[in-house]
Amino acid sequence: MSANVWSTEPTELLRVGDGFRLADVDPASTPGYTGGKKQGERDLAAAEGRFDELQERLFAQSRANPRSPSLLLVLQAMDSAGKGGIVRHVIGATDPQGVHLKAFKKPTEEELAHDFLWRIEKEVPAAGYIGVFDRSHYEDVLIGKVRELASPDEIERRYDAINAFETHLDISGVHVVKVMLHISPDEQKSRLMERLDRPDKHWKYNPGDVDERKLWPDYMAAYQTVFERTSSEVAPWHVVPADRKWYARLAVQQLVIDALERIDPQWPAASFDVAAERARLAAT
Amino acid sequence: MSANVWSTEPTELLRVGDGFRLADVDPASTPGYTGGKKQGERDLAAAEGRFDELQERLFAQSRANPRSPSLLLVLQAMDSAGKGGIVRHVIGATDPQGVHLKAFKKPTEEELAHDFLWRIEKEVPAAGYIGVFDRSHYEDVLIGKVRELASPDEIERRYDAINAFETHLDISGVHVVKVMLHISPDEQKSRLMERLDRPDKHWKYNPGDVDERKLWPDYMAAYQTVFERTSSEVAPWHVVPADRKWYARLAVQQLVIDALERIDPQWPAASFDVAAERARLAAT
Repeated sequence: MSANVWSTEPTELLRVGDGFRLADVDPASTPGYTGGKKQGERDLAAAEGRFDELQERLFAQSRANPRSPSLLLVLQAMDSAGKGGIVRHVIGATDPQGVHLKAFKKPTEEELAHDFLWRIEKEVPAAGYIGVFDRSHYEDVLIGKVRELASPDEIERRYDAINAFETHLDISGVHVVKVMLHISPDEQKSRLMERLDRPDKHWKYNPGDVDERKLWPDYMAAYQTVFERTSSEVAPWHVVPADRKWYARLAVQQLVIDALERIDPQWPAASFDVAAERARLAAT
Repeated sequence: MSANVWSTEPTELLRVGDGFRLADVDPASTPGYTGGKKQGERDLAAAEGRFDELQERLFAQSRANPRSPSLLLVLQAMDSAGKGGIVRHVIGATDPQGVHLKAFKKPTEEELAHDFLWRIEKEVPAAGYIGVFDRSHYEDVLIGKVRELASPDEIERRYDAINAFETHLDISGVHVVKVMLHISPDEQKSRLMERLDRPDKHWKYNPGDVDERKLWPDYMAAYQTVFERTSSEVAPWHVVPADRKWYARLAVQQLVIDALERIDPQWPAASFDVAAERARLAAT
């Protein structure tokens, strides 16, 4: 159903490949999509049925086989870029019973006493689930690098550790879709200002966001390095222009649908004798 | 908005009080609601905005105060009564980031080595969250009693333990809404038969469901005892007729909205100087 509106599949178009430069991406652009906002909202709603069926198949398949695949969507972004909206409006369209959601905050003392992947591994989705990480192990090479929370050697080690971890996920049937929502500093400013202007949005405002905002070029450089070091064959990065919320949602929905279609989950065969069960039930 | 269609609030009408007899409830009835299926579906959709705003306020309030309230919806029912549909179509209408969902399965060896409430306590929703238990500690006095998985003395002890536990929840700010979805044996038969008739539903069929079905009167007696022993002032039971899925969803939605309205969550005041932050942001 996406063939009509997408001139090129977002999976191809937004993927970080060789020679990618974050600075070349316009956060206000809508690559591959020819429609406007209204059309985009209609297309988002129109694809929900397809997403939902794929999710149910993925889940159903795992009931018969605990070694069957799962999906993991990793969301990274500067503050206010719209991670929450993706969870709400894209992932929220399917059955919450098949979704495993985890928002990673500042690590606790206990978490800091372990390797940075320790808390991540515990949240890897089980067979049949769609996992969503709102922030992730990438924080440890983003804020971790920008704020010098770890030594340069440790940061270097982490890129390799991440690649090994994600290869392990791939081998164990966890399909990883990595997304950076890319907004412009101006768009962030207006979104943060709106949080200050509306009393019902004050709770979403964090003074620390302005401090991080001042380090924008450092964060962009850290993202660029993340892409160069960790956009792999098994777990490529996708950079989604996110100044237009409707476009970002539509693009991430397509990335998720595309990943599910590649998994191609099937309704499992009955593990019981259907005719015998029908007779047994009829007799009650 | 519910005042127009509900002749009596479901919270009052469906609550288990003194002298309640489960045998007197018609699973095909639609108590308190004067509309039909189409109207019911429209009313469900119409109330989603109200539910959503209350959920967001509940969550927002807790960001400023970790001692603020949460809500816990406990769902119990015979197989195929529609617990999953409640989660999907009622709870699924709000932000999944504010929902903590837990489906309790057959206890593991580790869980069995602890008191029956051990695994339950770990899943109590944090401040600001809406928790949903798909099955719960009540399994331990339902299948636990019917299948004699524990001694009569232990079952007796559990009713008291549950009441003490739920009093503790109430004192600590967890508002408990307990719901039994009540279907008829005939309706269950037709729902299970449909799962056998459709290959895309086979995965939902479990031969064990027919075994439990044969013990229907024992289960109804166990539910009756549960209501008599554990429908308390702080955590009353509600029995929702569930042969009509649309009615059950509408009624549970109203129970949840009503509980949230009694909590009456408020947008928290800013914990920072709004004018100063506006100036600081503007300067970036």
